[in-house]
Amino acid sequence: MTTILGIDPGSRKTGFGVIRTEGSAAVYVTSGIIRLPVDQPLGPRLGVLFSSLNSIIDEFRPEELAIEEVFLARNPDSALKLGHARGTAMAACVHRGMDVYEYAARQIKLAVVGTGAATKEQVQHMVKILLKLPAAPKEDAADGLAAALCHLHSNQSLQHIPATARSRGRSR
Amino acid sequence: MTTILGIDPGSRKTGFGVIRTEGSAAVYVTSGIIRLPVDQPLGPRLGVLFSSLNSIIDEFRPEELAIEEVFLARNPDSALKLGHARGTAMAACVHRGMDVYEYAARQIKLAVVGTGAATKEQVQHMVKILLKLPAAPKEDAADGLAAALCHLHSNQSLQHIPATARSRGRSR
Repeated sequence: MTTILGIDPGSRKTGFGVIRTEGSAAVYVTSGIIRLPVDQPLGPRLGVLFSSLNSIIDEFRPEELAIEEVFLARNPDSALKLGHARGTAMAACVHRGMDVYEYAARQIKLAVVGTGAATKEQVQHMVKILLKLPAAPKEDAADGLAAALCHLHSNQSLQHIPATARSRGRSR
Repeated sequence: MTTILGIDPGSRKTGFGVIRTEGSAAVYVTSGIIRLPVDQPLGPRLGVLFSSLNSIIDEFRPEELAIEEVFLARNPDSALKLGHARGTAMAACVHRGMDVYEYAARQIKLAVVGTGAATKEQVQHMVKILLKLPAAPKEDAADGLAAALCHLHSNQSLQHIPATARSRGRSR
């Protein structure tokens, strides 16, 4: 049994989802959104993200982190802000001994929907179907769950992981 | 007595300097450069930065972090990379209960050299003089020490801190 945390970090909120494997099935554990106190300075804002992830790790004990890779950041200012959140999130997980795996957005959509050009709504819908949820999770939480599902699928069928993802993603 | 950690984070290396106040004087404690394993994936790379800062905090017990504020990132790619390092560094410090203070590059140069347009060499030279060092510290370490000195000067003369820096910088 492996427990996987998937996250979709952002400077205002970070979506997360935890799934675990039971045999060959993916089982939903939890998901949600960490909202950062945007009225506070950067230090405490990142502190909230770090400690929230620490609490999630304490409660659900994921061994692996799946996170979307950023290829084309939009502009320097938003890239810096996204970097702050991504760095904090990855440090929180690595600090707790988790392995970090990065996947391109295209890879995640392909794994969950079957096409790398899937819309946000299609991702939400397929996450609901794949995890047998009563309703589609919110967008950010769905993106976290989708990253986790992508990682799980890659694990289950190792021959489908490109060599770059295998070597690059592994933390230790 | 206050112990201040100043850092100059980067995606390849992070300069740091620790100083402490003795009466009205600034006393050099340590400084150096944390080199990230650039041949490794992002997760473990940020893990090295996080745990190196943790060790520095363990050894020297700084209460406050001074860090250069980024106003104009150069391009999205380098901004994202810088953000990863800054986010990791700030999270490491906030996680250990430190307060975070950000200062504009101009403010740091003004505090250390007396002009906001100072060169790197002038900063290195003045850091050597102000801290009575036998030689000028390396550039990144000097930038970390300069940030710490800037913060110390601001603390010592509160009337000179702009209201924005006072309210923005404080972590808790």
